[in-house]
Amino acid sequence: LAPVSFDVFVSKAQQKIESTLTSLVPKEPESLYAPVRDILSAGGKRIRPLLTALAAQLGNEQSKWEYAAAAVELLHTFTLAHDDIMDNASSRRGRPTLHVRYGTNAAILSGDVIIALATESLSRGKYALLPQMIEEFAKAFREVCEGQALDKDFETRSDVTPDDYLRMIELKTARVIELAAVLGSLCTGGKYVEEMREFAHHAGVAFQVNDDLLDLTSEHPAFGKTIGGDILEGKRSFLFVSATGKLEQGDANEQALINRIASRKATQEDIVLAQQAFLRLGVLREAKERIELETRRAQAALAAIPQSPTAELLVAFSELLLSRSR
Amino acid sequence: LAPVSFDVFVSKAQQKIESTLTSLVPKEPESLYAPVRDILSAGGKRIRPLLTALAAQLGNEQSKWEYAAAAVELLHTFTLAHDDIMDNASSRRGRPTLHVRYGTNAAILSGDVIIALATESLSRGKYALLPQMIEEFAKAFREVCEGQALDKDFETRSDVTPDDYLRMIELKTARVIELAAVLGSLCTGGKYVEEMREFAHHAGVAFQVNDDLLDLTSEHPAFGKTIGGDILEGKRSFLFVSATGKLEQGDANEQALINRIASRKATQEDIVLAQQAFLRLGVLREAKERIELETRRAQAALAAIPQSPTAELLVAFSELLLSRSR
Repeated sequence: LAPVSFDVFVSKAQQKIESTLTSLVPKEPESLYAPVRDILSAGGKRIRPLLTALAAQLGNEQSKWEYAAAAVELLHTFTLAHDDIMDNASSRRGRPTLHVRYGTNAAILSGDVIIALATESLSRGKYALLPQMIEEFAKAFREVCEGQALDKDFETRSDVTPDDYLRMIELKTARVIELAAVLGSLCTGGKYVEEMREFAHHAGVAFQVNDDLLDLTSEHPAFGKTIGGDILEGKRSFLFVSATGKLEQGDANEQALINRIASRKATQEDIVLAQQAFLRLGVLREAKERIELETRRAQAALAAIPQSPTAELLVAFSELLLSRSR
Repeated sequence: LAPVSFDVFVSKAQQKIESTLTSLVPKEPESLYAPVRDILSAGGKRIRPLLTALAAQLGNEQSKWEYAAAAVELLHTFTLAHDDIMDNASSRRGRPTLHVRYGTNAAILSGDVIIALATESLSRGKYALLPQMIEEFAKAFREVCEGQALDKDFETRSDVTPDDYLRMIELKTARVIELAAVLGSLCTGGKYVEEMREFAHHAGVAFQVNDDLLDLTSEHPAFGKTIGGDILEGKRSFLFVSATGKLEQGDANEQALINRIASRKATQEDIVLAQQAFLRLGVLREAKERIELETRRAQAALAAIPQSPTAELLVAFSELLLSRSR
């Protein structure tokens, strides 16, 4: 397939995703649904529902994949609304967060109703395999909450290892990407569902580690992002936990730098120092190696699916997922 | 059936409900699930899952009603956790609320995961009618959020009518009680599902208006409750919105009293004044008439179900629901 085919697929799928999301949100009460419309209209690339659309193409049956795709995007959006409250984040994608704009109560309740809308969306699809889809949805939803709990726990711990971190992002980040692939597959019979789960799992972990790496190394940060944002926020990223594990190899300046980041006292000047220290300590290399390892595993899972135009599109998707400069 | 049969049924059902709820909550992460175990162990009478158990007896099929019942109780528990944050409530059932004990972040996230556990519970029941049950669950969940949004909207409005209020409690209170009845019925084939929905709807509205009435008139307030709590909190109860609609009939003292309640400045002395004013203005009579009307409607719905031991138990249930002194 020529690259344009992927772009055409993406563009058509995104249109359907947008119109489905819009159709799922009731008009009233305004106080409940205005924040929901607001956070949904902030957009993003709709990467997860796009994966659902792609995975659905692997099956033979005709099916309304868009309701499963919308459910996944809504689950993801719910996590953004509530995580922003818990992280006390003031902006996302260049816009004020829901709790800043509408107050914490409205942000809590809007996040809640987004989950209700996600569940309704799954129900609307009238899927033959709905029982399995609900089981997958509920489990992913629970595990995303567990991942967020671990992430919050890590903020007050100084002994988090890269393995702990990977376990956390498996739950917090990879699960929703897995769910996107699994629900898409189950929409149309579930033929390659375990291959798709495996692919999405490793692609999801690679995606998050890449996200952490790009925070410090991207030459073209995406709209609403600045280089080193994670350093300034003291985020327990892959780079940070890797660096803390190598502290004994660091000199006194590097140790002081890590302590400033850990205690959320890092300044703008520390961003360049972190780039240098993380390079010297091998942290950037460790992140790149992990991304490569997970990418190879994702590709191996895809390779188990027979050659087809859809399999080609999935390869293009994984490139999109990992190449994005946030 | 002798009254003891109802007690025996209730006692056995409650045991099963408790053990099912316990079995649904994972051990770790502790930071996530300790608050969940805490709020679930605070108990209450488990009235909603009991209704699920009763409604399930109307069908012929054997079915694990306890997973549907647990889903309903979890949905209810989620609303308590998040509403207590939004209402800034410091205690419930004589214990500190989750956000007071564990912090707002943990209370938000624990409430979230309780919904995931509710969805998982429905999934575990392996119900033949799961698609309908999920549809009902998602709709009730959405409408409970809408009811809570209306309730919060009412706090800043001075023109709320008793009809507005009834619409709000239909969503916020009655929907979960309806869901309890509907899911119970659907567990075992759904034979009298619309009769059960109608019964639970009116019983649920009667229950909430009775709750509002008992706040001011109960001679034996339940553990953790005090007479007139709604007056002190300035709660927009049925009594309050009815009184504001009759303000023109009130004298200057009564108007000043309503204003103190509305602006959350009512004192302990105002409770007796409110009892007197609400009696004189006909507010207490209006509440009693509404309770009687809704109770008659609930009974009429039950009367459409053929005589059976289960139908007798449902009558006993409706008496339990309405007689409780909070």
